[in-house]
Amino acid sequence: MTAPNRATLWGRAIADELAKAGVDAVCVAPGSRSTPLTVALDAHDELTVFSHLDERSAAFFALGRGKVLGRPTPVVCTSGTAAANFHPAVIEADTGRVPLLVLTADRPAELRDSGANQTVDQEKLYGDAVRFYRDLPEPAAEPRRLRSLRTTVCRAVAETAGAEPGPVHLNVPVAKPLEPTTVPAESPDGVPEDLAADHPLAARGRDGPFVDVHAGVTEPSEATLDRLAAAVDAADRGLLVAGPTDEAYADALVDLAHATGFPLLADPLSGVRYGPHVPDGPVLGGYDAYLHPDVTADWPDPDVVLRFGASPTSKPLRKYLARTGARQFVADASGGWREAEFRASDLVVADPAPLARALADRVESPAEPWPALDAAEAAHWALLDERDDAFEGRIAAAVAADAPDPATVFVSNSMPIRDLDRFARPDAKALRVLGNRGASGIDGVTSTALGAGSATDDPLVLLTGDLAYYHDLNGLLALSRCGVDATIALVNNDGGGIFHMLPIEQFDPPFQGQFKTPHGLDFEPTADLYGFDYARTDSLDAFRERYRASLDSAGTQVVEYVSDAEASHRTREEVREALVERLT
Amino acid sequence: MTAPNRATLWGRAIADELAKAGVDAVCVAPGSRSTPLTVALDAHDELTVFSHLDERSAAFFALGRGKVLGRPTPVVCTSGTAAANFHPAVIEADTGRVPLLVLTADRPAELRDSGANQTVDQEKLYGDAVRFYRDLPEPAAEPRRLRSLRTTVCRAVAETAGAEPGPVHLNVPVAKPLEPTTVPAESPDGVPEDLAADHPLAARGRDGPFVDVHAGVTEPSEATLDRLAAAVDAADRGLLVAGPTDEAYADALVDLAHATGFPLLADPLSGVRYGPHVPDGPVLGGYDAYLHPDVTADWPDPDVVLRFGASPTSKPLRKYLARTGARQFVADASGGWREAEFRASDLVVADPAPLARALADRVESPAEPWPALDAAEAAHWALLDERDDAFEGRIAAAVAADAPDPATVFVSNSMPIRDLDRFARPDAKALRVLGNRGASGIDGVTSTALGAGSATDDPLVLLTGDLAYYHDLNGLLALSRCGVDATIALVNNDGGGIFHMLPIEQFDPPFQGQFKTPHGLDFEPTADLYGFDYARTDSLDAFRERYRASLDSAGTQVVEYVSDAEASHRTREEVREALVERLT
Repeated sequence: MTAPNRATLWGRAIADELAKAGVDAVCVAPGSRSTPLTVALDAHDELTVFSHLDERSAAFFALGRGKVLGRPTPVVCTSGTAAANFHPAVIEADTGRVPLLVLTADRPAELRDSGANQTVDQEKLYGDAVRFYRDLPEPAAEPRRLRSLRTTVCRAVAETAGAEPGPVHLNVPVAKPLEPTTVPAESPDGVPEDLAADHPLAARGRDGPFVDVHAGVTEPSEATLDRLAAAVDAADRGLLVAGPTDEAYADALVDLAHATGFPLLADPLSGVRYGPHVPDGPVLGGYDAYLHPDVTADWPDPDVVLRFGASPTSKPLRKYLARTGARQFVADASGGWREAEFRASDLVVADPAPLARALADRVESPAEPWPALDAAEAAHWALLDERDDAFEGRIAAAVAADAPDPATVFVSNSMPIRDLDRFARPDAKALRVLGNRGASGIDGVTSTALGAGSATDDPLVLLTGDLAYYHDLNGLLALSRCGVDATIALVNNDGGGIFHMLPIEQFDPPFQGQFKTPHGLDFEPTADLYGFDYARTDSLDAFRERYRASLDSAGTQVVEYVSDAEASHRTREEVREALVERLT
Repeated sequence: MTAPNRATLWGRAIADELAKAGVDAVCVAPGSRSTPLTVALDAHDELTVFSHLDERSAAFFALGRGKVLGRPTPVVCTSGTAAANFHPAVIEADTGRVPLLVLTADRPAELRDSGANQTVDQEKLYGDAVRFYRDLPEPAAEPRRLRSLRTTVCRAVAETAGAEPGPVHLNVPVAKPLEPTTVPAESPDGVPEDLAADHPLAARGRDGPFVDVHAGVTEPSEATLDRLAAAVDAADRGLLVAGPTDEAYADALVDLAHATGFPLLADPLSGVRYGPHVPDGPVLGGYDAYLHPDVTADWPDPDVVLRFGASPTSKPLRKYLARTGARQFVADASGGWREAEFRASDLVVADPAPLARALADRVESPAEPWPALDAAEAAHWALLDERDDAFEGRIAAAVAADAPDPATVFVSNSMPIRDLDRFARPDAKALRVLGNRGASGIDGVTSTALGAGSATDDPLVLLTGDLAYYHDLNGLLALSRCGVDATIALVNNDGGGIFHMLPIEQFDPPFQGQFKTPHGLDFEPTADLYGFDYARTDSLDAFRERYRASLDSAGTQVVEYVSDAEASHRTREEVREALVERLT
């Protein structure tokens, strides 16, 4: 590797190591200070560059790719506030455990705190949210510094996908010239030595990554397995809880469910609620409706609960688990704690897949069935089949029921994920359901979805609400700019429908003015702005028809369902009350 | 003050102290965890609530108000990534020295790092960018804690507008209930004591602010003044440089200019380039064109340069100052350093207004005129008058020339502020020209402008580019939601026109694909989306006509000037070359 100046050399070495470490695409927001990176990334044959104009959307797009791929799509910006626009996605990557590698160009050290233009304090910009942070040394055609650079890049990529996947921040100070202008004194082919010839390792790296990071697998000890198996075998009944995760360990959990006989309560974001294992498996959904205190009051408590993944989306499930006297084991590969009722007594530090498989092998005989639980689920779906009310919950159910097989289904926070959780049945289709459930923000939803869509050949469906759609309108530019197609189901109830679920609904004012906050936006012009088809309806049947048509069509379509948030909320309550009545 | 529960009590005490400390408006993004704050702010008679749906835009809107008012408009959000969306504006407030008070609701301490929903690490979220940070204690109807709360709120407001104005972060953890539901055990009127009666000071505060912060003024010492005056009096020639600032000390600088006889090079964002002092004053503009090395080569060096405000927008000016052998004094009220060529030898820690006045009183006789400098400026304006080329620089000039008197003119970063700097003449009109020149981002421009507009009765003009317009499209919602009218001059050259100024222009690819990055967006649908009038033209005359018509109209109009970035850049270069030729 030769280069006309040290900044170019630096950019090329970074691009080279990223590619060798397994990166195949990057997200770049244009800027001047990042020029050496941008030029090198663009020139690299093995890297696809997704160009974004809004750094906030760029980072969420990269996050979406990370969720699907399990490896980072680095995201690059210039110096200044650009880097701060990455912060929301960095936090979601931290709390949601998603590989994300952030490269922020920076002014050289002598310009810090100097009043120089577009120069801000980027050191540790994301605080404790990142797994790994380095302020890179300044570019130099110096062998040890180059080896250090290559080592750091490889480690940074690996750290995004370690035991606790998450964000990594490399701050990259570079001095001018930033473009590939020849600077004889800086050229690695020039003085003081012929770097490329004399130090080929530093200049060119290796055939593969400069440092191959061999990730460890955290296995449970024999003693831990013995204690776990003893608890499971001693239990009359137990539960497996699969919380949100982007990791793929559904098969291992299903094996464990069969071995233990424990019902498997599967979050829509767990990777377990959908897939070919569902028809003959122990997977339960819809519990958000029937795990009501009046329903569960007469149930025997489970003796053991084994929890995997993040804390479940369903508050009724979380509250049910808090009510039981069960011994709760939380399995977490990195020793994190994601059980906010503080009812768990055992934290098992182990990778979920090997843990579940080893435990399944060790369990002696499955527990008895739990008929009340199965009956409750059956009653929930039966009740929904009997009723013909159209409301937001039916949209969520239809989005899943009508989705193609396979498909990637991205679901917004606030009501869409809750509606999907409660009203959409487990299904044998291979639906990869994704959401930003780490910090549960309504920001970046569209961008994350489109990023996910860009990383898979499966059709992409986005189920979103009007606030999330508004918040990330800029993200829609990726449809054309990054070549992504999507079917976007937009539930528009003109404001914060979720607040109808909260006690503040009873206090108006300020409910309408400060919580529901209707915006009155007509989103149809967004179709002209970003170039896609748009349909709007307040009929469930018409929605389904347009939604299905979209799935059969090329390009992107937004299908808007106009809803009354309060009426939908009342229907949700009615359905739940009818179910509780039926079950008690 | 009585309250049904401790969270409500907390919210009311915060709202009460904000208002007593001089706050008259707040920006609120809806959310659940912030309910006690939102309810109390909304209920307070003396507070106007601006409701925003995108926290990034909300914070920039508050920043814009802070620039105009010199006091903070607090901005409130719920827990989670919402708070991270404030980060870009926090950084601009830090680097641009703008009062900004950020209140982030948070989960109570027991839920931190627990996996609880929408719970992220908000402690010191903005790092060193804030002047003052407190994680508030949890609400309690306890006298000392309430006094502490009231004290902290008053101090927080004061810290935003101290010697170095900037952002302040109060993190506000609150436990449920969040809405004003009566909790007898928590009611300050109930057990364990009648707080309102027994501790009226804690419960109700004082008639005025709980703590009145009497800000100090940093005055130069007599010895400093003697040394400064001696340097000025000994100088054959000198310069005053007024860099960007939102502080109003134009009169004092003009007095100093008259007393010293030094020309006053006034940045468009200095508050000095426009105003009634201009016709008979020593204010120079346009130096971005004529301070060219070939022009200044034969000039005598100034002996003394006195710099006020931030580093000037004009790179030719910064480079000229770096070339001179002058002794440079940097005046800064907080002892900050904003001179990135490191040519200054003296840092004078003093408030600019009293410093300038005291120095003006002490100087014995003004320096001789500097005819070459005056002639250069005159030649620049004459040349522009002679030529009839239409290009982006003419738009910036027209925006200022045709603006009403008085007006607030907000100017985007990238090319608009540079064009205004070079091509718009100093003027006697009372134009308050504002920009986000702290970190010089292109994010949040529209929101900052509309926030500024919401804080003044003067007409609001925004001069922006297509990338900035796209980046903050969400900010346009404030037009209707916050009741702001504006005339928006949009220079659309379809991408990053500024990159034509940079050496990377010579390297294509990747210039077009990764730097210029044309987006091809037709912005006219934004008028339907956000409800305003829209006009588009590629004619300078038609632009001026529509621009003037807009200034005479109620409501908001976007007047788009479609430009070819490269052609505009070539014209800028031609004009400069013609000027240099004329002056050498």
